[in-house]
Amino acid sequence: MLILPATAVIREVGLRDGLQSIQTILTTAQKIEWLTKAYAAGQREIEVGSFVPPKLMPQLADTWDVLAFAKTLPGLLASVLVPNLKGAERALEGKADLMVLPLSASHAHSLANLRKRPDEVVQELARIRAARDASGQKTIIEGGVGTAFGCTLQGEVRPEEVLRLMQSLLDAGADRVSLADTVGYADPYSVSVLIEKALRIAGDKFCCGHFHDTRGLALANAYAALSLGVQRFDASLAGIGGCPHAPGASGNASTEDLAFMLEASGVKTSINIPQLLALRQQVANWLIGEQTHGTLWRAGLPKNFKPAA
Amino acid sequence: MLILPATAVIREVGLRDGLQSIQTILTTAQKIEWLTKAYAAGQREIEVGSFVPPKLMPQLADTWDVLAFAKTLPGLLASVLVPNLKGAERALEGKADLMVLPLSASHAHSLANLRKRPDEVVQELARIRAARDASGQKTIIEGGVGTAFGCTLQGEVRPEEVLRLMQSLLDAGADRVSLADTVGYADPYSVSVLIEKALRIAGDKFCCGHFHDTRGLALANAYAALSLGVQRFDASLAGIGGCPHAPGASGNASTEDLAFMLEASGVKTSINIPQLLALRQQVANWLIGEQTHGTLWRAGLPKNFKPAA
Repeated sequence: MLILPATAVIREVGLRDGLQSIQTILTTAQKIEWLTKAYAAGQREIEVGSFVPPKLMPQLADTWDVLAFAKTLPGLLASVLVPNLKGAERALEGKADLMVLPLSASHAHSLANLRKRPDEVVQELARIRAARDASGQKTIIEGGVGTAFGCTLQGEVRPEEVLRLMQSLLDAGADRVSLADTVGYADPYSVSVLIEKALRIAGDKFCCGHFHDTRGLALANAYAALSLGVQRFDASLAGIGGCPHAPGASGNASTEDLAFMLEASGVKTSINIPQLLALRQQVANWLIGEQTHGTLWRAGLPKNFKPAA
Repeated sequence: MLILPATAVIREVGLRDGLQSIQTILTTAQKIEWLTKAYAAGQREIEVGSFVPPKLMPQLADTWDVLAFAKTLPGLLASVLVPNLKGAERALEGKADLMVLPLSASHAHSLANLRKRPDEVVQELARIRAARDASGQKTIIEGGVGTAFGCTLQGEVRPEEVLRLMQSLLDAGADRVSLADTVGYADPYSVSVLIEKALRIAGDKFCCGHFHDTRGLALANAYAALSLGVQRFDASLAGIGGCPHAPGASGNASTEDLAFMLEASGVKTSINIPQLLALRQQVANWLIGEQTHGTLWRAGLPKNFKPAA
């Protein structure tokens, strides 16, 4: 008899992973409206941006201000992506609740995306840990292992290498680790096999699965992870997102479809789906001309739908 | 440790469930080309049409001829849908390998779709069984229980009623039974729960899961069933299909995406995916103006993809 977790968290990454991959630049006011309405719809973990040089990613140049606003919402866990120590220092200064340092298990992708070898990223995490400890801030440090199921540049990424790097991140001082199918290569069986091993290494420090829908499997992959007890998933409203260094890798799991799968399966997310669908419509209107994804916004909730109790 | 079946069969239903739901009428020659190329790509179970009155479903008026051609392909299991005894008599006459009698567990859907109560369909199955036994034909009789996870007309469909009707079909002489999420309401947890019970009732007479992608969950639902040992799934090339009596219920699981999920997960389907994608392109070209679905045709196979050994 399959036992699913009673609750799960969808961490909204549309404001970061979503917006970084598209041309349209939302205003700070639009992002604040998005945050406010996502919060009102019950979302309590939101990645608000990325502390990368604004020249590289003008879409996220206002991350400082968006983070400052997010900090005013009681009980919201506001996270940011940081590519390096410099970004982490900004995150600490801005009192982010969580910062995610991405590491690509694919050496080719790591060099293209971060201009560092994976083991150099591990060293950077150790420096970030030292800076955090010295700062007196409580900002949680998450090491996110990306291209964990393969890579558009190098093809195969060996699971042993993924797990070795995950262990190295923990050894270097990561509070948590997560796995990402950055390019949409994962299948649910590979997810089961890798996450089972990741859980053996990281235990309850394994915190999140990040799946892309490039080949229609984001939800199946999330379900495979959920079946193993994983209780946190990254997703992006309207499924926006991708990876600038992974051609063809379009679309995160869409928040609204994932929320439907979880709630319909009896896993409580505390998300009000009709409210979320209204926000989805608004964000899609801001992003006219950009590719959006997902199915629930078109089909609507089933007549027999009951949110998880 | 999750153990998946070593092999699974995708039963192509695009020529029936797919074509019945769209306006474009393919010629018999096109259907024969589709069959020939699907067979060449490794598909060995194909639902070639439906013995319904041609006036009701002109798209499938040539089922007799398509079936006759399908019978010439060695080792192909050619199936047809039959709504009643009259259709079953045609199927027997045409020496179909398998005929599927659909039953809607939703009384409202059953009346709208078949103009019969579910228990009247069970009685029809008994008559079909008698006709089959009298005919000397080996045509397998499958009772397909549809709207098994809810219904756009009546909303809730009680699992107990689904299972009662499945048992009744077996008692009335069905060789096999299957479950269909006719309207795309299922979630993977409900699939697990219902199929576990169905397997307890039907054992190895439970033969197939039929999932629609209306809310993006066809593959997750198939995976949930696969995890319980189910080894046959209906799917439709390019995800075409729906249900004329279920508004908004668009899209079967797409054959090519399902084949990718299965093969990537190490479950052998014997389908050559590149060949299937070429056929998908051709069929999509025949159906310009119609809604097609699926993701793999756009994204392509991952660089690290290996077919199941």
